[in-house]
Amino acid sequence: MSRMPPRLPDTDMIENAPSAVASGAAAPARGRFITFEGIDGAGKSSQIAAVVALLQAAGLDVDQTREPGGTALGERLRELLLHEPMHLETEAMLMFAARREHLAARIEPALEAGRWVVCDRFSDATFAYQVGGRGLERAKFDALEAWVHPGLQPDLTLVFDLDPAVAAARVASTGVDPDRFEREQRDFFERVRAGYLERARRAPLRICVLDAARTPEAIRADVERIVRERFLP
Amino acid sequence: MSRMPPRLPDTDMIENAPSAVASGAAAPARGRFITFEGIDGAGKSSQIAAVVALLQAAGLDVDQTREPGGTALGERLRELLLHEPMHLETEAMLMFAARREHLAARIEPALEAGRWVVCDRFSDATFAYQVGGRGLERAKFDALEAWVHPGLQPDLTLVFDLDPAVAAARVASTGVDPDRFEREQRDFFERVRAGYLERARRAPLRICVLDAARTPEAIRADVERIVRERFLP
Repeated sequence: MSRMPPRLPDTDMIENAPSAVASGAAAPARGRFITFEGIDGAGKSSQIAAVVALLQAAGLDVDQTREPGGTALGERLRELLLHEPMHLETEAMLMFAARREHLAARIEPALEAGRWVVCDRFSDATFAYQVGGRGLERAKFDALEAWVHPGLQPDLTLVFDLDPAVAAARVASTGVDPDRFEREQRDFFERVRAGYLERARRAPLRICVLDAARTPEAIRADVERIVRERFLP
Repeated sequence: MSRMPPRLPDTDMIENAPSAVASGAAAPARGRFITFEGIDGAGKSSQIAAVVALLQAAGLDVDQTREPGGTALGERLRELLLHEPMHLETEAMLMFAARREHLAARIEPALEAGRWVVCDRFSDATFAYQVGGRGLERAKFDALEAWVHPGLQPDLTLVFDLDPAVAAARVASTGVDPDRFEREQRDFFERVRAGYLERARRAPLRICVLDAARTPEAIRADVERIVRERFLP
């Protein structure tokens, strides 16, 4: 992973510049949007908790959320997505419908209020699962992404990269019943993994790919270093 | 309403042409797709029943359906659309997600099997309600329509045009609790009505606008004449 320059100071200066000062009530600096990506079993959950704790320890107000879901409507769509049979393009549209609601009702208001948003999966997952895994046409997803969040991408995305065989063994050991996605075969997850890596190649400044085969402590050290270097100078 | 030339013979000849005959098992001629549009209270329901009866009396196999809905998943999305608060663009995406499923699971298979599909509302309604009524950006809906049903439009659309004040009085007399759309104010339905008329101007050969202020018998006579002239020569 390459070292990225911290980006807070410049943006803060712009966002807290004269107009806000002149009005007498300085608007809060816009919050940061950090997403976690990877197949189930890659170890995202414990690293999300660590990042939330790190940000909170730095005095930041953090909203932890997930996709699909994150709103009352989004969680109902998540249930349909994980358990109901449907056409693959219906699945794609429902994912982006839930995302549209999540952005409008939760993510954008939080960021505008200066809160930081830490989200378990976002559009990179849709490209990895639906374009990579399902083999759907990339151009149709580029169109939905441009429709639903033109001009908005996470400030940082951490992809937890792991051999699907290792991830599957970890998931199986939890004993939880698999959902529609988890029941897919090994080659599906190989394509999802490749989909994430392809997505990372297209946005190398935003997306950091982490080797998730290592110990949780080693991964956590990397994650914390990335977050500190970027955001907490 | 202008008189339209019947269109069945040409298309039938193309669809039953040599390839199917040569294979020994003639594929059925593709069915026709007829949609009914208008605000609640405009009197669609009884006219739909009349057209279904007319087609069945002509020996045709008819699948009567509706939007949003028409599939198990679509009906669950319909419940969310009619009763849950949501961002207006989420509403648009859910409408088209339900439509994608409806096309894949029901409309396209029926048409390909030679069945006729009679549907209470389709994409014209989304343009009338979301672009006309809600005032959302038309280009975003053109994009969703092109995404969800490129190359497919109904063979005939009947728009039941009525003063919203008259329609509202009819609906109120039924005593049924209004849904999210029905609770909108009069000016909303004026814009929906204008949205339908605008849509009809853009597709004058496909869309027939009927004066729904007349008696059901007079409207029915028009509807049957249009269907006979187009499809039952």
